[in-house]
Amino acid sequence: MKCRLCDSTAIAALPRHNSGFCRTHFIEFFQKQVRKAIRKYAMFSRKDRLLVCVSGGKDSLTLWHVLNESGYDTTGLYIDLGIGGYSRASLEKAESFAEGIKRELIVVDFAREYADIKRLAALSKRTDCSTCGVVKRYFFNRVALEQGFDVVATGHNLDDEAARLLGNILRWQIDLVRKQSPLLDSDEGLVKKVKPLFRLTEQEIAIYAFLNRIDYLREECPMSRGTTGLIYKDILNRIELESPGTKHFFYFQFLERRDDLFSDGAVERKDRPSLCRRCGMPCSEQVCAFCRLTDYLKRSGQTPDEPA
Amino acid sequence: MKCRLCDSTAIAALPRHNSGFCRTHFIEFFQKQVRKAIRKYAMFSRKDRLLVCVSGGKDSLTLWHVLNESGYDTTGLYIDLGIGGYSRASLEKAESFAEGIKRELIVVDFAREYADIKRLAALSKRTDCSTCGVVKRYFFNRVALEQGFDVVATGHNLDDEAARLLGNILRWQIDLVRKQSPLLDSDEGLVKKVKPLFRLTEQEIAIYAFLNRIDYLREECPMSRGTTGLIYKDILNRIELESPGTKHFFYFQFLERRDDLFSDGAVERKDRPSLCRRCGMPCSEQVCAFCRLTDYLKRSGQTPDEPA
Repeated sequence: MKCRLCDSTAIAALPRHNSGFCRTHFIEFFQKQVRKAIRKYAMFSRKDRLLVCVSGGKDSLTLWHVLNESGYDTTGLYIDLGIGGYSRASLEKAESFAEGIKRELIVVDFAREYADIKRLAALSKRTDCSTCGVVKRYFFNRVALEQGFDVVATGHNLDDEAARLLGNILRWQIDLVRKQSPLLDSDEGLVKKVKPLFRLTEQEIAIYAFLNRIDYLREECPMSRGTTGLIYKDILNRIELESPGTKHFFYFQFLERRDDLFSDGAVERKDRPSLCRRCGMPCSEQVCAFCRLTDYLKRSGQTPDEPA
Repeated sequence: MKCRLCDSTAIAALPRHNSGFCRTHFIEFFQKQVRKAIRKYAMFSRKDRLLVCVSGGKDSLTLWHVLNESGYDTTGLYIDLGIGGYSRASLEKAESFAEGIKRELIVVDFAREYADIKRLAALSKRTDCSTCGVVKRYFFNRVALEQGFDVVATGHNLDDEAARLLGNILRWQIDLVRKQSPLLDSDEGLVKKVKPLFRLTEQEIAIYAFLNRIDYLREECPMSRGTTGLIYKDILNRIELESPGTKHFFYFQFLERRDDLFSDGAVERKDRPSLCRRCGMPCSEQVCAFCRLTDYLKRSGQTPDEPA
């Protein structure tokens, strides 16, 4: 296969675009998709200070790489959740990447200051993944607020977003469906959140990471095995094999038509945004999910240290 | 496992209901689901003449069995589509079932009077399955109209309906989504169509067929291999294994909330129902899809005999 833009041999096939690219044009294509995402949603400009949430995996390190290459003012944020060897290995990847691009990496040692995720999940009777989600969302926002960042950027890709949409649709959670977006605007106590990789698939990100020698942790989080999110991704990949472009169409058409697709009557639960009585962070109840989680720790006799 | 209603050993597990039934109570459960479907959508009464569309497979013969056992006035309709040995074998199953319950079976020999589906699909450049769909829908309605039936009943089950819904949602075909229903009411030239098995899964139907010694054709239609409909069914079954009840919830919640879920603005194409200039059957264009199909035959030099 030839590159669709020059005479070189294609090194990356893009079935959903029915084409392939050489190294140079693949990287151009990739950067163009990121630029398109940033522009379309007015995510940020070169004047903004970006907090890039990194896990040590391919999506988040690729995000940091492409934003840094594009000249944005970036700082990394890593949250150590205490998932044994996986957390140690992923912190190492994040640290050595930060060193390589000479940018600061902020590290929140959640496991040491509070508890490891598995313990907290067991105490609170939440699933591991939902506990992890509460903790990460809380610190993404709090660190950004306290340290004056303008935007929080995460490495969510097209596969993540399409899988999430499918899961919410299968349960007809229209309130969640209508909120799903590559951009969550700032609000009282809430820093703007963006997903600049939402136009790119996992596979495309893996190719970009490979071509740019990004040294990321290949191991998946051991707690995510068999979770519904991964199953929905697998399922969409199977449909994609049969009908290339379905995943892209499903999510992009949703974004285009979201405001016209669903009726207002379909939203059951209206969020009343407010601030947590305890910590002052935004939440939809009187006490935020993070404070309720750490209450379990206090009740179990392990009082957390002074919060990070 | 014990039957949830008596002390006997359960012979059928129903994970989505988190229970199991003995033979007697499974058949009761099955019949109750059919009664519930008929009542909720006011599908038909014992005064109506029902045309039951049968393919020789488990769903349609089970439908005929359960409606006949329940005392409804039923006649079978079989359309021979000329799919080689598969059509011969399925006609035999339908004929011997009709004999067994002493009901009439109307047979339309489409392949002899027009052409076999594969040839027609090739001529018209449609897929096999969509060609078959046009032909079947046409004759279901035409035979019912001409012979004075009140209702056309088909064996579509929960798996069929959920898979169809998923396919339409992945393409955001909201006009098709909003029309999907276990009941299509009668209209000018259009006989009422119902799907009394929509509350039951394929597996439940297979158990009912087994318990009632219904001799059906186990072979799947050779033209359906690898079609997206089958892939969506597989996919929903995979999700079902992980989270029992998802398929049920996805389709039943849709039925409950359909009118409130989607906004009117989401429907792009409005059907203008009219009658085909050529054959007088209902259609959304000036000439119906069936007449357009048979035009290809005429143009190819094979003029169909006098229509059945």
